[in-house]
Amino acid sequence: MIDADMTLDETAEGIRTMEIRGAGRIARTAVEALDEHAATLPAATPREFRDGMQRAADLLLATRPTAVSLPNAVRAVMRGLEADHPVDDLRAAFHGRARAFVASSAGAVERIGEFGARQIRDGDVVMTHCNSEAALACIVAAHRAGKRIEVFATEVRPRGQGLLTIRRLNDEAIPTHYIVDSAARSFVNEVDLVIVGADAVTVNGAVVNKIGTAPIALAAHEARTNVIVAAETYKFAPLTTVGARVPIEERPPAEVLPDEVAATLPHVRVRNPAFDVTPPEYVDLIITEAGAIPPTMAWMIIRDHLGWSIDEFRRVFERS
Amino acid sequence: MIDADMTLDETAEGIRTMEIRGAGRIARTAVEALDEHAATLPAATPREFRDGMQRAADLLLATRPTAVSLPNAVRAVMRGLEADHPVDDLRAAFHGRARAFVASSAGAVERIGEFGARQIRDGDVVMTHCNSEAALACIVAAHRAGKRIEVFATEVRPRGQGLLTIRRLNDEAIPTHYIVDSAARSFVNEVDLVIVGADAVTVNGAVVNKIGTAPIALAAHEARTNVIVAAETYKFAPLTTVGARVPIEERPPAEVLPDEVAATLPHVRVRNPAFDVTPPEYVDLIITEAGAIPPTMAWMIIRDHLGWSIDEFRRVFERS
Amino acid sequence: MIDADMTLDETAEGIRTMEIRGAGRIARTAVEALDEHAATLPAATPREFRDGMQRAADLLLATRPTAVSLPNAVRAVMRGLEADHPVDDLRAAFHGRARAFVASSAGAVERIGEFGARQIRDGDVVMTHCNSEAALACIVAAHRAGKRIEVFATEVRPRGQGLLTIRRLNDEAIPTHYIVDSAARSFVNEVDLVIVGADAVTVNGAVVNKIGTAPIALAAHEARTNVIVAAETYKFAPLTTVGARVPIEERPPAEVLPDEVAATLPHVRVRNPAFDVTPPEYVDLIITEAGAIPPTMAWMIIRDHLGWSIDEFRRVFERS
Amino acid sequence: MIDADMTLDETAEGIRTMEIRGAGRIARTAVEALDEHAATLPAATPREFRDGMQRAADLLLATRPTAVSLPNAVRAVMRGLEADHPVDDLRAAFHGRARAFVASSAGAVERIGEFGARQIRDGDVVMTHCNSEAALACIVAAHRAGKRIEVFATEVRPRGQGLLTIRRLNDEAIPTHYIVDSAARSFVNEVDLVIVGADAVTVNGAVVNKIGTAPIALAAHEARTNVIVAAETYKFAPLTTVGARVPIEERPPAEVLPDEVAATLPHVRVRNPAFDVTPPEYVDLIITEAGAIPPTMAWMIIRDHLGWSIDEFRRVFERS
Amino acid sequence: MIDADMTLDETAEGIRTMEIRGAGRIARTAVEALDEHAATLPAATPREFRDGMQRAADLLLATRPTAVSLPNAVRAVMRGLEADHPVDDLRAAFHGRARAFVASSAGAVERIGEFGARQIRDGDVVMTHCNSEAALACIVAAHRAGKRIEVFATEVRPRGQGLLTIRRLNDEAIPTHYIVDSAARSFVNEVDLVIVGADAVTVNGAVVNKIGTAPIALAAHEARTNVIVAAETYKFAPLTTVGARVPIEERPPAEVLPDEVAATLPHVRVRNPAFDVTPPEYVDLIITEAGAIPPTMAWMIIRDHLGWSIDEFRRVFERS
Amino acid sequence: MIDADMTLDETAEGIRTMEIRGAGRIARTAVEALDEHAATLPAATPREFRDGMQRAADLLLATRPTAVSLPNAVRAVMRGLEADHPVDDLRAAFHGRARAFVASSAGAVERIGEFGARQIRDGDVVMTHCNSEAALACIVAAHRAGKRIEVFATEVRPRGQGLLTIRRLNDEAIPTHYIVDSAARSFVNEVDLVIVGADAVTVNGAVVNKIGTAPIALAAHEARTNVIVAAETYKFAPLTTVGARVPIEERPPAEVLPDEVAATLPHVRVRNPAFDVTPPEYVDLIITEAGAIPPTMAWMIIRDHLGWSIDEFRRVFERS
Repeated sequence: MIDADMTLDETAEGIRTMEIRGAGRIARTAVEALDEHAATLPAATPREFRDGMQRAADLLLATRPTAVSLPNAVRAVMRGLEADHPVDDLRAAFHGRARAFVASSAGAVERIGEFGARQIRDGDVVMTHCNSEAALACIVAAHRAGKRIEVFATEVRPRGQGLLTIRRLNDEAIPTHYIVDSAARSFVNEVDLVIVGADAVTVNGAVVNKIGTAPIALAAHEARTNVIVAAETYKFAPLTTVGARVPIEERPPAEVLPDEVAATLPHVRVRNPAFDVTPPEYVDLIITEAGAIPPTMAWMIIRDHLGWSIDEFRRVFERS
Repeated sequence: MIDADMTLDETAEGIRTMEIRGAGRIARTAVEALDEHAATLPAATPREFRDGMQRAADLLLATRPTAVSLPNAVRAVMRGLEADHPVDDLRAAFHGRARAFVASSAGAVERIGEFGARQIRDGDVVMTHCNSEAALACIVAAHRAGKRIEVFATEVRPRGQGLLTIRRLNDEAIPTHYIVDSAARSFVNEVDLVIVGADAVTVNGAVVNKIGTAPIALAAHEARTNVIVAAETYKFAPLTTVGARVPIEERPPAEVLPDEVAATLPHVRVRNPAFDVTPPEYVDLIITEAGAIPPTMAWMIIRDHLGWSIDEFRRVFERS
Repeated sequence: MIDADMTLDETAEGIRTMEIRGAGRIARTAVEALDEHAATLPAATPREFRDGMQRAADLLLATRPTAVSLPNAVRAVMRGLEADHPVDDLRAAFHGRARAFVASSAGAVERIGEFGARQIRDGDVVMTHCNSEAALACIVAAHRAGKRIEVFATEVRPRGQGLLTIRRLNDEAIPTHYIVDSAARSFVNEVDLVIVGADAVTVNGAVVNKIGTAPIALAAHEARTNVIVAAETYKFAPLTTVGARVPIEERPPAEVLPDEVAATLPHVRVRNPAFDVTPPEYVDLIITEAGAIPPTMAWMIIRDHLGWSIDEFRRVFERS
Repeated sequence: MIDADMTLDETAEGIRTMEIRGAGRIARTAVEALDEHAATLPAATPREFRDGMQRAADLLLATRPTAVSLPNAVRAVMRGLEADHPVDDLRAAFHGRARAFVASSAGAVERIGEFGARQIRDGDVVMTHCNSEAALACIVAAHRAGKRIEVFATEVRPRGQGLLTIRRLNDEAIPTHYIVDSAARSFVNEVDLVIVGADAVTVNGAVVNKIGTAPIALAAHEARTNVIVAAETYKFAPLTTVGARVPIEERPPAEVLPDEVAATLPHVRVRNPAFDVTPPEYVDLIITEAGAIPPTMAWMIIRDHLGWSIDEFRRVFERS
Repeated sequence: MIDADMTLDETAEGIRTMEIRGAGRIARTAVEALDEHAATLPAATPREFRDGMQRAADLLLATRPTAVSLPNAVRAVMRGLEADHPVDDLRAAFHGRARAFVASSAGAVERIGEFGARQIRDGDVVMTHCNSEAALACIVAAHRAGKRIEVFATEVRPRGQGLLTIRRLNDEAIPTHYIVDSAARSFVNEVDLVIVGADAVTVNGAVVNKIGTAPIALAAHEARTNVIVAAETYKFAPLTTVGARVPIEERPPAEVLPDEVAATLPHVRVRNPAFDVTPPEYVDLIITEAGAIPPTMAWMIIRDHLGWSIDEFRRVFERS
Repeated sequence: MIDADMTLDETAEGIRTMEIRGAGRIARTAVEALDEHAATLPAATPREFRDGMQRAADLLLATRPTAVSLPNAVRAVMRGLEADHPVDDLRAAFHGRARAFVASSAGAVERIGEFGARQIRDGDVVMTHCNSEAALACIVAAHRAGKRIEVFATEVRPRGQGLLTIRRLNDEAIPTHYIVDSAARSFVNEVDLVIVGADAVTVNGAVVNKIGTAPIALAAHEARTNVIVAAETYKFAPLTTVGARVPIEERPPAEVLPDEVAATLPHVRVRNPAFDVTPPEYVDLIITEAGAIPPTMAWMIIRDHLGWSIDEFRRVFERS
């Protein structure tokens, strides 16, 4: 039991310190920690069990209040606890929900790849930005289905995730063009389809993704090139339904300008937002593991697929 | 005389190898080489003088056929040679035109700064891209005139000219924000004015400038933020008047991806265009030393200010 | 009982003569009149009760066929009557629904304020038009939450509701700029967010609101400034689901031009539409008490939240 | 039974050879063939009945894998078969669903006409393209309701369906202007409303319709003229929910260029796509028999009205 | 002579205090005052005459540094003074130029009316804003030429110049619709042509005109309705050629909010800009007395028609 | 002399009856007829010669008042007649101008081809509409210069000039795709450059050309595809400088609908405009024999190249 508590605390700590990163990994790790906690939580009554699990859930939720997948994951396993079944039944049901969530989350990328690959035609030139597992799944699935495609991939300043992308594409032997971020508009007229991932999708379909996504979507829109976003459903931000804005993380200046250079430039301040916001009118389709939707249908994912209601949102706000 | 020939050859070589770079410097160096050549060119008759100078001019023009300022500069000093004056008078007149060209070229940036500074209001936030002497002249002149301004400057991948820009702005104690290129759209809503330079301006007002300029102009247009281009008149490309396109130089892949990494990625090809083309509808004003004009007035600069006629353009094409 | 009939008639008369105005007040008054009527309606059988209530409902619905909140309110309390419970049970259930509706309607503005305030950031400049209770709730809630904000408010010709708005904002000590309607575009580049109310929202998300709203939304769109509409769910127009257009009321000419002046201008005709229609592409978010949605999600509010079905719409048309 | 099999086979053949054409007719014919098949299919157990019907359904579905109405129709009658009722009950229930589907399909156009006519105001000028039964139903219903309207109708190259349209409008004595397709933009400023039909609607609201629809919608959008699509719900393409693209049929060259002329032009190739794709941002409203919706609400039609789930889509893909 | 000096001073004072208003009237009055001054200025040498006139010109120019027509007018009569002719000849030539300027200025509106009327077709609906003599000249000339036209005229808050407009149109018996400013977008779809005047035109074709012009031009652009600006050439702002911005006058708050009301609202500040700026992309044609031009051709009017050179502009700046 | 008069009359008649068609042919025929007339016109004094020629010119100008090239051609040869030289000298000078005009006109297409071909890159896909000699000259010149290009050509309803175009392209062995007019938008994303001709260019750069040009330009603009217009300078419409609109010819209904069919459709009226108007913002470049210009530079062609002044325009209007 001490170990279990430790594990929960360790997980919380890992999420807080961003050792555990990535929307999918955060979600699955949190669910697994809760599942292990549930297995060993001493509880004489359903109420005790429920209260203990709620404390555990609250502990995790407090680690990164702005993480989008965390509340989605916690909520997916916590619902059902209010029933007055014997504690062992609650425990078993919790375990079932946890396994289902992890399986669905792990399978989401593959399913998105299956759906998204159908959007790519033989001979298409695809542009991508950053290193999205889901976006790459679409591209790789199309390639493996025998379609001859080419890819334009950006380098993704300041952290250079584009290098991971071109390595992956190279491993698949997909012909790839590698460009600086600001060259995307110069080539978008040769591109048939832009596919990117998402860090979060808001209730009105705005897509929060790696800095540089929005200018590419804008340039694609200017050139009548379709833009597809590949996003697992746990990326949809439920709190935006009650008006919340998705905060844009600003990362360390040293990623852009070495500290020793910055020290010589007292009038210069680095601004380093990690993400930008692509408005829904520049996105033609969001592909989730629950199907392809137009961006403005995000609310249905949040309400019907993730199962949130307005009142639950409000409770989250009160807690946070 | 041998020395003079050497100098001309050396200059030609310097331009060809791009040791002599920058539209303004190329223009002034070429004119000075021609002037020195004219001073010592042995010629018994006006025709001999004219023919000798034409050979010299052709030698220079052949070094970088796509350089915009080179034909403008050569033409500015070569006109008038057809008159049948004594050789010494032709020599003196040539020298006068050469001095006038160099002076006007050298004074152009200051005058553009004077004009452009008037477009910046007290309290304005200005965004710039790359490291344009003319654009910075406007910003610095406004600052020195006592206007409180702030600047957003981009880093300018792949060669990082933004570092020169923020050093210059820091020296002037102008508060500056430094961002990656693809963050420009994220901040353009806070910006009152975008000011950039130009490598070339075509007859219909399209602006060829450092890669990344066009996406910024597009984002500024999307946000109803004015875009000003600061460009000396010798940047206006006369050959576009007879249909020529301004070729976009593609630079070495290693600027983007180190050769040793590229070697491990056989399916990846770096594309590294040095410039992009901003269409005239995203440019509100071009500020030249001959005044501020809308971009579509470029033809008047070429025809009236630079003094080119259609027939001269055609001769250039036949020669090249 | 006579009194009750009187009250219903009086209410109907008050709505018809527009003594009772405002979407929310019309809705609540109608529901209260029906509730009082239900309490005293003599009825021996469920069918008699149902028929009597339907006559009362039809009386109210006929008063202003184009009022949007009226059918929404009536429908909210009338559903459930078809059950064959004892009359007293039906009466009690009706009373319950009536109280719930009134409470929810009265609480809607506060909840919208809670949601909408989250969209306003510290330091934001907000523009509003006309005098919307729901829009002001967002602004005031953000201000009370300690965010430093400024507001641009328009005067709202011809009836000058802007004066009410600036009085309210002044009472809250919110720094406010007051401008003529046609100056909105001149200032919208300094604005971070436009928040307005709605008189009606159609099934495809078009927002019918005070004349002058659409040009502001257009100017905001031109300047990449977000536009939020604050609208209670009973503003969503169910009949637009079956193709109905929301009629735009044209008000008396004398609001614009005094009759004595008009009399001297026989060739001049005043056109005085009270509302205009903002297309959904200029609206980023509609904030309702049931959550924030993109405008194109209006159908879900009508179907799921208000509970209308196609067949009910058709009956309304047949009745009207 | 042999006859029934014949009928099913004949129907399948008719659909394959495109003797049976038109989304509505294909749907109804397929359902009727299945109904007749069900009536006579020898089956001892529910399972036998189910398997026999599934084989019949698969036979039909295989005839035109890209027909949109076919899977919608088949699915509408096949659901419910999984229940373990006696075979005769299953047969009867099947028959009920088949009759309901045919009735609803046949009544859809009239209901769309009823809804769409409300969008047309007295005095309106309407533009239509091709010869859509549903679009014409709206126009004719408005005319019959006493509204004075005028219509612009295009000729619709290459097959000239516009002739059918103007004949129908002439029969109704509706004043009509007949123009070549490429004149639509010249007149769209005089038009109040564009109404067209649809061959298919994708999950994100893109409208696949007769070639020439998209340029008209684009021109209408440029002129702020509303565009309405009249489309029965069985036109909504369920497979697009799992990423499928609607294939655009390319028809025989001879429709555009007589073979004997083409034979003299070896360097010329005719391209003859039968349809084009209008993006959802150019469509203001889609009117279905289930109500008017914005185009981006297509998913709700597919999911809630047609009743498809993601898993069913995937099975379809596996079968096809 | 004392009287003449008085007159010059009086004129200067009248312009400074804005008793003398309107671009045309300022221009003509200034020229007439200079002419009278020239007639009586005691001068023994051309140089004395020139110096005396320059002092007089400087006196006038200093009264309203931002008036556009003033420097244009002064410049038109002052050029030619540098010649070394006898003083009486200079005086006579000055008088000639003065008479020519006044005649051309006075005839400009009529000529603009002649040109602009050709843009209006029989049956057209025209929208205008504010009370521009030149714009009304086009409308009235078209009407007098027998074209049946209708006009939409706005009321023009806060000073209500629309009343003057509808009186003028009523006198001409032109059917006129009178609307509040913010209703312009609601009617612009019924309008064939927008015609407005200008207070100033900048070198890149931006039109400075009465507040409310820009939103109308924007709405016209959104609806593909052409916008024509009627502007005498002396409205073209020469200083914008050297980068100057046209300052936007902000008028007394009491025009918008009575002082006694404002006194009760300490947190409210009235913003009352008199003009706004319409970007050239929303203007299809500027009609001057020197012909119709696209807005971006403004520089040619300034350079060729008004005769300014860059160096003269710079002197003006140095003086001011 | 009688023959000469006959010839002049015959030419006038040929232009009136549209036997002589095409802007270039009309221009050259008119000039040749005037030249022959000048050669034989009996005249004792310069004045008699001038008056006789003016009568001849007026005769021609009256034949098709809206033809654009006719006044340009007549004006080009008539200027200079006002000089008081001996009649024989005037005759000789007239002949010289006539020959120069014909030569320049005949050479214009070739020169445009030379300029326009430079805009086409190796590998480009070009789209054209109708059968413009100048546009085809660019395409053919690029092909003959060894560039590998492909062409999309439209059929051009109702008169099918596309057939001439594909024959010409087939003769040159240029790979060509032939499409119906309304399929242009479907393929424009695959196109690198649109090149069309012009029937007239207005002073603000609007291009009057064969019906169907404007929707293609609009679709190209939507897809960020450049549009080039190839137009001889005599296509620039001088009268638009004084406000004239270019009238759009409406051709016989039978071109669209056979008379025998039309007779059965009393409620149907064919509208058959021969041209449409492409606004300058959809045109990137106009290529004339005097160089490439942005469309808004049309005034400079009219004023500087064609040599018209405002006062001459007014005289034309008074005469017509």
